[in-house]
Amino acid sequence: MKPLVSIIMGSTSDLPVMEKACKWLEEQEIPFEMNALSAHRTPEAVEQFAHEAEHRGVKVIIAGAGMAAALPGVIAASTSLPVIGVPIKGMLDGLDSLLSIVQMPPGIPVATVGVNGAQNAAILAAEMISLGDEQITQKVKIWKSSLGLKIEQANKELAGISDYKFKC
Amino acid sequence: MKPLVSIIMGSTSDLPVMEKACKWLEEQEIPFEMNALSAHRTPEAVEQFAHEAEHRGVKVIIAGAGMAAALPGVIAASTSLPVIGVPIKGMLDGLDSLLSIVQMPPGIPVATVGVNGAQNAAILAAEMISLGDEQITQKVKIWKSSLGLKIEQANKELAGISDYKFKC
Amino acid sequence: MKPLVSIIMGSTSDLPVMEKACKWLEEQEIPFEMNALSAHRTPEAVEQFAHEAEHRGVKVIIAGAGMAAALPGVIAASTSLPVIGVPIKGMLDGLDSLLSIVQMPPGIPVATVGVNGAQNAAILAAEMISLGDEQITQKVKIWKSSLGLKIEQANKELAGISDYKFKC
Amino acid sequence: MKPLVSIIMGSTSDLPVMEKACKWLEEQEIPFEMNALSAHRTPEAVEQFAHEAEHRGVKVIIAGAGMAAALPGVIAASTSLPVIGVPIKGMLDGLDSLLSIVQMPPGIPVATVGVNGAQNAAILAAEMISLGDEQITQKVKIWKSSLGLKIEQANKELAGISDYKFKC
Amino acid sequence: MKPLVSIIMGSTSDLPVMEKACKWLEEQEIPFEMNALSAHRTPEAVEQFAHEAEHRGVKVIIAGAGMAAALPGVIAASTSLPVIGVPIKGMLDGLDSLLSIVQMPPGIPVATVGVNGAQNAAILAAEMISLGDEQITQKVKIWKSSLGLKIEQANKELAGISDYKFKC
Amino acid sequence: MKPLVSIIMGSTSDLPVMEKACKWLEEQEIPFEMNALSAHRTPEAVEQFAHEAEHRGVKVIIAGAGMAAALPGVIAASTSLPVIGVPIKGMLDGLDSLLSIVQMPPGIPVATVGVNGAQNAAILAAEMISLGDEQITQKVKIWKSSLGLKIEQANKELAGISDYKFKC
Amino acid sequence: MKPLVSIIMGSTSDLPVMEKACKWLEEQEIPFEMNALSAHRTPEAVEQFAHEAEHRGVKVIIAGAGMAAALPGVIAASTSLPVIGVPIKGMLDGLDSLLSIVQMPPGIPVATVGVNGAQNAAILAAEMISLGDEQITQKVKIWKSSLGLKIEQANKELAGISDYKFKC
Amino acid sequence: MKPLVSIIMGSTSDLPVMEKACKWLEEQEIPFEMNALSAHRTPEAVEQFAHEAEHRGVKVIIAGAGMAAALPGVIAASTSLPVIGVPIKGMLDGLDSLLSIVQMPPGIPVATVGVNGAQNAAILAAEMISLGDEQITQKVKIWKSSLGLKIEQANKELAGISDYKFKC
Repeated sequence: MKPLVSIIMGSTSDLPVMEKACKWLEEQEIPFEMNALSAHRTPEAVEQFAHEAEHRGVKVIIAGAGMAAALPGVIAASTSLPVIGVPIKGMLDGLDSLLSIVQMPPGIPVATVGVNGAQNAAILAAEMISLGDEQITQKVKIWKSSLGLKIEQANKELAGISDYKFKC
Repeated sequence: MKPLVSIIMGSTSDLPVMEKACKWLEEQEIPFEMNALSAHRTPEAVEQFAHEAEHRGVKVIIAGAGMAAALPGVIAASTSLPVIGVPIKGMLDGLDSLLSIVQMPPGIPVATVGVNGAQNAAILAAEMISLGDEQITQKVKIWKSSLGLKIEQANKELAGISDYKFKC
Repeated sequence: MKPLVSIIMGSTSDLPVMEKACKWLEEQEIPFEMNALSAHRTPEAVEQFAHEAEHRGVKVIIAGAGMAAALPGVIAASTSLPVIGVPIKGMLDGLDSLLSIVQMPPGIPVATVGVNGAQNAAILAAEMISLGDEQITQKVKIWKSSLGLKIEQANKELAGISDYKFKC
Repeated sequence: MKPLVSIIMGSTSDLPVMEKACKWLEEQEIPFEMNALSAHRTPEAVEQFAHEAEHRGVKVIIAGAGMAAALPGVIAASTSLPVIGVPIKGMLDGLDSLLSIVQMPPGIPVATVGVNGAQNAAILAAEMISLGDEQITQKVKIWKSSLGLKIEQANKELAGISDYKFKC
Repeated sequence: MKPLVSIIMGSTSDLPVMEKACKWLEEQEIPFEMNALSAHRTPEAVEQFAHEAEHRGVKVIIAGAGMAAALPGVIAASTSLPVIGVPIKGMLDGLDSLLSIVQMPPGIPVATVGVNGAQNAAILAAEMISLGDEQITQKVKIWKSSLGLKIEQANKELAGISDYKFKC
Repeated sequence: MKPLVSIIMGSTSDLPVMEKACKWLEEQEIPFEMNALSAHRTPEAVEQFAHEAEHRGVKVIIAGAGMAAALPGVIAASTSLPVIGVPIKGMLDGLDSLLSIVQMPPGIPVATVGVNGAQNAAILAAEMISLGDEQITQKVKIWKSSLGLKIEQANKELAGISDYKFKC
Repeated sequence: MKPLVSIIMGSTSDLPVMEKACKWLEEQEIPFEMNALSAHRTPEAVEQFAHEAEHRGVKVIIAGAGMAAALPGVIAASTSLPVIGVPIKGMLDGLDSLLSIVQMPPGIPVATVGVNGAQNAAILAAEMISLGDEQITQKVKIWKSSLGLKIEQANKELAGISDYKFKC
Repeated sequence: MKPLVSIIMGSTSDLPVMEKACKWLEEQEIPFEMNALSAHRTPEAVEQFAHEAEHRGVKVIIAGAGMAAALPGVIAASTSLPVIGVPIKGMLDGLDSLLSIVQMPPGIPVATVGVNGAQNAAILAAEMISLGDEQITQKVKIWKSSLGLKIEQANKELAGISDYKFKC
């Protein structure tokens, strides 16, 4: 089945973060692929990837990168697909990668999520794809409504705490 | 014609920034609407807006806000449409609104663009809509390829500078 | 006994911090309640909570949240009760939640305490309630004067160190 | 008529900011007083002020200060009244005064509002006083509900822009 | 023997940092005292301390504090002795205490050293005292010239590394 | 008359800031000198200056510098006199020069004042000199007590505002 | 004459800053060229430029860019020539472009200068070229020694101020 | 064999970081030396080192330093050789040393690499030397092209993950 989402990362050291995107898409049964590509170490492969992604049927690209994180912006420069950038926390609390990704010049947006926010990147990708895919629209709606259930569970946990509370 | 993009802003003082989104969509003839809604001053109107947007045919919501910018996240909480957040520069160089918008908790992504990046928000909205709309796909492609022409013009300007350069 | 203070938090992961508010109120025998509510995951429950709190006899709301911490501001938008915001430390040293809470737009203040300052939030709540409650005024005064005793104890500890000091 | 709110500032250069607190209280006919007191230049006057404020009938203290803004915290140290701190923007975008005011040690909270947020400080003071004063409760409620009207007016302004929009 | 340097700290939790000041003064046999005093919890004791220090023969005050670190500035407000401030690292990497100490308003300087720089505070105190004390002048000179020896030792360590270097 | 304070700055562009130190010392009739010396452009002159200052009778050195402000630290490295550093605001709001000056390594303290705090540097210099100079001790005391008068004047100004206040 | 230094910038709006590099190289009669190229708008032109620069005889590349400044890093990815990055001040005081340029991943260094430091970039380029070019070595030495003369002139200016000083 | 690169560091505590520069140069068989020198503790040795380095045949100096990192700039002040600065992470996430190194005043550039970027400093040094040394040019080219191989290996690792991925 052809991947709708292409997850790329600048280095395999980003995998523990980016895995959260992969997990969510897998749970939702939204087909995806995952590759390591570096704007700085394999620039031509990045260029080629960006040019071909649309033709291969990819709908959204999720690019995670740390430090001087050029990867999401460089991909966005060579495709008309929406690109989601995931800043990865490193030396400077992730502020370096956040600013490197979000502060794009006029004309080339990158849809940036929070530091290490790979799961949110996957959800955002699904929201985008659902604009042209009724089936995924349903998946997103079901999942979003499930968030309320989680907080109900949280309230039960707190109720448990409330009992314990008299000793807190 | 029904708006595909809904631009909202927390205050009319955000208009000089958000206007850049409106201009770009108008140039591309992508139908949009524009409203002032505040997560803090009209919370119920925001809730109602977020719930009804999809049913009215809106595909993407662009929300601009400054300071403790809760608007994009609060809208994202009540819709399955993708929400693009535009941090607006105010007291603390825009760092307050950037962090308030981009650092969303797991489950509720906001596609954040750079500080005051309203034009990029409009382009990103078009990229998203083009996933289910062939006509807008063409518009985005034509526009993106025009960016190269602008830099050619820039190079001509620099050539003009090169002449003057001998006195720089 | 009806709660005077309502402590809410965006996620049960905030509990280790918010517990300090609960402990202090319990020691002072000021009745309180504790709930998990999320501006982003249960927006309608937040709205309902904010509208009803005053009628249920709540005097002050303490809201703790991390990251893009919309919760305190969103509650403040729907109540006339004073709302105390507790920024919770997460990815960016708590600067993200601090700015998301304190930089409220004109008209909707949130009384913000320091990062992870849940105990201070509880004390501040008591100070506010004491404006209309003589009994709690006494509690606050007794407690505040006890701070001096703690520092006396600290000085004794330092005296112990002074002896050891000759080897420091 | 005895002041319920006491506004103090570290320097008359803070007046253009603090005036917004004075204006709001005046509009609401909530009696207040205004003084210049400096934690660093008139420490004994500050101490005396803090000790006597409650006995003079003051309910809430609003303290504005810039740079290394010790004033709100030092006052909070000598009173059981709630103290609202207003960080005033100066050399470092107000980050210095914000952190100097909000990051109080355990035991001595300061209710901090946003940088230059003097109007919000006044509203917060009214919310606090309303806990023991039914008349001011009504004033706060009326004023808070008026915020919605302002955004309606904003929407009308935007409608005006919508007409002009076709040329934007 | 009467103390020439008075070391104070806002909390005994600051002791592991402030100890470095105590150790250096002890090594140099410069008499000192050490106390816990809090601008926020024992304001009157701070005031009294600041007023009496000079009369007791103290020459320089070293004040360490974290978070919203008012202690050094408040002491400086009530004495003509030079006050050295030591920002102590806490929640926000020490940036909060650094700015709270160094950004003093005109008229009341605090001689600020680096975050957790208690040893440097002790050396600076000795440099100040040496302006009126020939014996301490000699101690400072001897110690400062010893710094060169330490780096010579460092070079020897590196030479050891150089041998190992062929495997580095 | 031999200068007791030596004011140096890295560039004459720093003069508008450093002038405030010169003015204060002149008013107090404390003899000083003023020179431009750059750690980066005249390193040998800086070294020579630092070595000779003490022998020429200088008691305290005030060094102002912006950006990567090495000047105060480099001087401190070659003298046993206390060195006061004045961070000068430039490109990055003065945060670059503040951190470059205050974060000195162990062994070489610089007494840092606030960004652009040249007047405070002069006052601090006087406080230091007064440790060995009774006459200057008196000057500092008189001046410090005058600060209270300024705030009294400020209060009168505020009283003037109080009248106008009814229209504020 | 073939250019030894190639100055590129992401946008002609960067010209007022980058001009300082051009001026310095012209004064030193070091041949250079100047082009506008954008990592985000003309990625293929950047790639081609980076691959060909060495063959055209270019020795050093100076790349200026603002915001999410990918240009210097992307060029460094496709050449073995040293690349100097000039962060250009924009929305966030230049911190965004500084971090985007300097925080390069392992393997692809960019020699970063200060925010808006285009003249320093030109000097650094000359220092690099002088490693293989005796004539430029001489130019750099002459220019560097001239810096001392400028500070002598500065001292004369200060002497002029010293006269005026009695009224400062 | 005479060293072409001279690595210096402010303290042996910087060795774990600076070792990465040593390792890379050793692998490439580019002769280097390594010394501990401190701008603040051995200023004269630094001055002497900087003046003599060129005459000893050194081509590039790599200087690592933390906190108020004056070392790279002070060396750059006394040599015409290119100086590479390595900010070393310490108290404030390395922001203090980064700004202390990169924000050099006009006339004295330091080629700054990322926080703890010692390996990149070594690569950059080799790129500079290769401008006048054909043999090192070849080494740099071979090494740079090897980066692509590493990412191929990374892709294989990801392929391994892809298998495991079905359980991620």
